[in-house]
Amino acid sequence: MSEFFVDPADTREQILAATYRTLCERGYADLTISAIGEAFEKSPSLVYRHYDSKDELVLECLRYMLEEFEAELTEADLEDPRGRLEEFVGWGLGDAPPEQRRFVSTLVELRSQAVHDEAYRAHFTRSDEVFVGYVADVIRAGIDRREFRKCDPERVAETLVTTMSGAMLRRSTCESEACLEGVRDGLEGFLAAQVYRPDGS
Amino acid sequence: MSEFFVDPADTREQILAATYRTLCERGYADLTISAIGEAFEKSPSLVYRHYDSKDELVLECLRYMLEEFEAELTEADLEDPRGRLEEFVGWGLGDAPPEQRRFVSTLVELRSQAVHDEAYRAHFTRSDEVFVGYVADVIRAGIDRREFRKCDPERVAETLVTTMSGAMLRRSTCESEACLEGVRDGLEGFLAAQVYRPDGS
Repeated sequence: MSEFFVDPADTREQILAATYRTLCERGYADLTISAIGEAFEKSPSLVYRHYDSKDELVLECLRYMLEEFEAELTEADLEDPRGRLEEFVGWGLGDAPPEQRRFVSTLVELRSQAVHDEAYRAHFTRSDEVFVGYVADVIRAGIDRREFRKCDPERVAETLVTTMSGAMLRRSTCESEACLEGVRDGLEGFLAAQVYRPDGS
Repeated sequence: MSEFFVDPADTREQILAATYRTLCERGYADLTISAIGEAFEKSPSLVYRHYDSKDELVLECLRYMLEEFEAELTEADLEDPRGRLEEFVGWGLGDAPPEQRRFVSTLVELRSQAVHDEAYRAHFTRSDEVFVGYVADVIRAGIDRREFRKCDPERVAETLVTTMSGAMLRRSTCESEACLEGVRDGLEGFLAAQVYRPDGS
């Protein structure tokens, strides 16, 4: 996945970019709206004027990032289905730039808010739908191109997204990431047996 | 898995049982040490005398439950490896008593504390080791009995525990559990292809 908030276009995007940077630096537990105000290039009061609470800012930031992810998807992403699938799995297993790796831990904190907060639950429900839909589209493209076996794209996508969610949870909450090498091997076995066609078949 | 805290033996176990009940009822976000005191059959002041903070109580409760799980494991658990594996997967996918289903959501909240809290991180690191070790033992037993294929027990165990972690995370933080049916099918496919021997082989 590409970098987030590279070139914010207006004040709103600059505020959301400051929210993202602050989330990466501090995580959610230590996040305050005044820390976001400090990270914002212009006047902190602009942040307070537009947003009432840190959760309002965080949720708008998450929604913005998800919309950006959806907007950047093109037909070209479906031209190399195996590459896209491996990129997706790799991202969940830690092959991401350091800043995004830190953000994954923050996402785990944010996602746990959804246990008791409806607005977070609505966001992560939609976010899962987007990622499952994307992975299922990639798998359908692979089947159409005869690079993948005939399989149930939704079923495989739900399984991959769930395993990736677990990988992000475990590596953010365990003392070592060593466990993930076993997961990488296990998923390669799963994809080889259920999804990829053997070479030359 | 059997029920927790059925017959607490002494004051300490009664306090931990009250902690468990309160966690099931309130979750972590709304947990207070005085709510635990109220759930305790004897004097609430006994709770405050022994524990300084709610996290101290919660961590001792989690450690106690993990030790109970380990203490209850016997050789007999390895006599039906396929049954044990299906029970483990089913528990993660929601085939648990209602009280334990509620506790799974609380576990997600507690686990997210490990992003910024070392004591929680140490607990969940150990907890993952225990469950991965258990699943790997079950798989080794299945291979020894020729019910399972020759496979790498640790690799399969890490993958299953990770997918189960993701399933518990997703079902605690999404509006619907419908996604988990795809995961159930996907895992059955994984186990059929990688672990179980075909009938009669």
